[in-house]
Amino acid sequence: MDFKQHYLSCKSLVDERLRAVVGPREPSSLYEPTQYILSGGGKRIRAVLVMLAAEAVGGTGIGALAAGVGIEMLHNFTLVHDDIMDRAATRRGRQTVHTRWDEGTAILVGDVMIGLAQSTLLENPPKRCVEVVRAFTHGIIDVCEGQALDREFETRNDVTIDDYLHMIAMKTGRLVETAAEVGGLVGDGTPEQIDGLRAYARHIGQAFQIQDDLLDITADEAELGKRIGGDIIEGKKTYLLVRALEQTTDGDDRRMLDQMLAKKGLAEEMIPVMRDFYDRRGILDSARRDVRLYIERAEADLQVLPETKAREMLIWFAQMIMSRKG
Amino acid sequence: MDFKQHYLSCKSLVDERLRAVVGPREPSSLYEPTQYILSGGGKRIRAVLVMLAAEAVGGTGIGALAAGVGIEMLHNFTLVHDDIMDRAATRRGRQTVHTRWDEGTAILVGDVMIGLAQSTLLENPPKRCVEVVRAFTHGIIDVCEGQALDREFETRNDVTIDDYLHMIAMKTGRLVETAAEVGGLVGDGTPEQIDGLRAYARHIGQAFQIQDDLLDITADEAELGKRIGGDIIEGKKTYLLVRALEQTTDGDDRRMLDQMLAKKGLAEEMIPVMRDFYDRRGILDSARRDVRLYIERAEADLQVLPETKAREMLIWFAQMIMSRKG
Repeated sequence: MDFKQHYLSCKSLVDERLRAVVGPREPSSLYEPTQYILSGGGKRIRAVLVMLAAEAVGGTGIGALAAGVGIEMLHNFTLVHDDIMDRAATRRGRQTVHTRWDEGTAILVGDVMIGLAQSTLLENPPKRCVEVVRAFTHGIIDVCEGQALDREFETRNDVTIDDYLHMIAMKTGRLVETAAEVGGLVGDGTPEQIDGLRAYARHIGQAFQIQDDLLDITADEAELGKRIGGDIIEGKKTYLLVRALEQTTDGDDRRMLDQMLAKKGLAEEMIPVMRDFYDRRGILDSARRDVRLYIERAEADLQVLPETKAREMLIWFAQMIMSRKG
Repeated sequence: MDFKQHYLSCKSLVDERLRAVVGPREPSSLYEPTQYILSGGGKRIRAVLVMLAAEAVGGTGIGALAAGVGIEMLHNFTLVHDDIMDRAATRRGRQTVHTRWDEGTAILVGDVMIGLAQSTLLENPPKRCVEVVRAFTHGIIDVCEGQALDREFETRNDVTIDDYLHMIAMKTGRLVETAAEVGGLVGDGTPEQIDGLRAYARHIGQAFQIQDDLLDITADEAELGKRIGGDIIEGKKTYLLVRALEQTTDGDDRRMLDQMLAKKGLAEEMIPVMRDFYDRRGILDSARRDVRLYIERAEADLQVLPETKAREMLIWFAQMIMSRKG
């Protein structure tokens, strides 16, 4: 099995199906922007994971395609609504829905995508319907809770690393976990196998988010595709900042952090100073170590699955996700 | 069976369960406003209809309670998001969620209510799970389409009565129809019985909306609980206005209507003039006739159900819904 080739063929099935979900459908004020957001590209990680998880428990990827497309649409719903809340003007180099159309449209487009996601999921009703819909439903609830926590953190200065890891497990990791769970259910895995797949996905989600926070300050600007240090300018409570706050209790460094909290961000010229501080205090190294640790855990979580090519594929998939430079 | 008593006991079960759904749950930034909107009162028409529909096909009301509460929460999700889009500051005499908190909170609260609605629905997984979840899902999609159409109508001057009836069947009527359908499914009705229940609900929804448009100009201000003529001031495409536009092609009356369209509403002093125009042209009478017609159709739709007290209860229920003065 050529892993990359297998990933690309899964992804192309997903892209094709996503294009077909909406098609030329009325009212156009609702479905044109829905089509726009769904055609925005992306790695389709969640959809492909549903297919790979189904294969890893002995099912077929194609049998899990509709469920995967459903999860991918749910992910896109969160992007559209988060972009309104974050007042983001662009995403992946294109205007966001509320910028290109208006806020009311973006609210409705997100809402209808929840319905479309679920109707796609039910196209070929899975044998274990109640479990699949329940996983889907808890995914929606947890993602909303994660986003609410993230918003609470903006005005809280006592966020611990554990709080932070919980928040990203909900906000970023939850739909990846839901993808693994739904794939395991559609493939008719055992409870132990499904738990293993969920843990794998959760750990990948955490590794991914910590790496995202690292890349914001260590990546090459051209490869990242956006300005370095954006999180520092915005005063965002990243993994790095939360760790720094925990372990820096006094001195000049603490005063710099306090200033960042008070002013909700630092000026651009402070980016190299913060980078140097994170480096000197060993925070970059500890973040890199944690990324490796979570990936190792994710791989270990797969031990409960039968030793197949499909399981190896999941290990390759984790590395592929993490291999981005920007 | 004392019909009013039965309605009130169903409603009180619904209110109790709605209070329990959220309870003291974290994050509070998400669940306090959710609790607030769910405790805002209301007739709980959709939830009670789920219970009554289940009874009318031979099931029990209590067995359909969770599904009813789920539909009621879905209805509340639409209110929270519609209020953002309509920039409404108050609802039922209380501040709207986006006014009391902020828009981001209101978006998230609506989103999480979709998840909570469905998780309530699945508490005791219904035997006909796929059908119930599918009805629920199509309810979400259609309500969004109805709201999108309503927004399109704001800038369209060629809306026909058929367009209008289609829009309200989606926006206002759809969740009432979903309630009847889900109740029929949970009560394990036959396809014919469920079709009858859906038609009943759809016709009630249409009668209700036309009456709503009528009351805006004919009600007693104190009983309506808001200013008379709000729709005229806003230039809203109501049943009355759409009918008037269809049958008034020239003369002073047409010029008044064109002015209303061009300026997106008329000044307050024009309210009695418009009322007189609607009266003189027979539009009020034809609206009243249509309300009666839809209610008669709704009653006829129930003929396919067994002749029981539960069926009589549905007839009483339709009259109760329409008996409001404001």
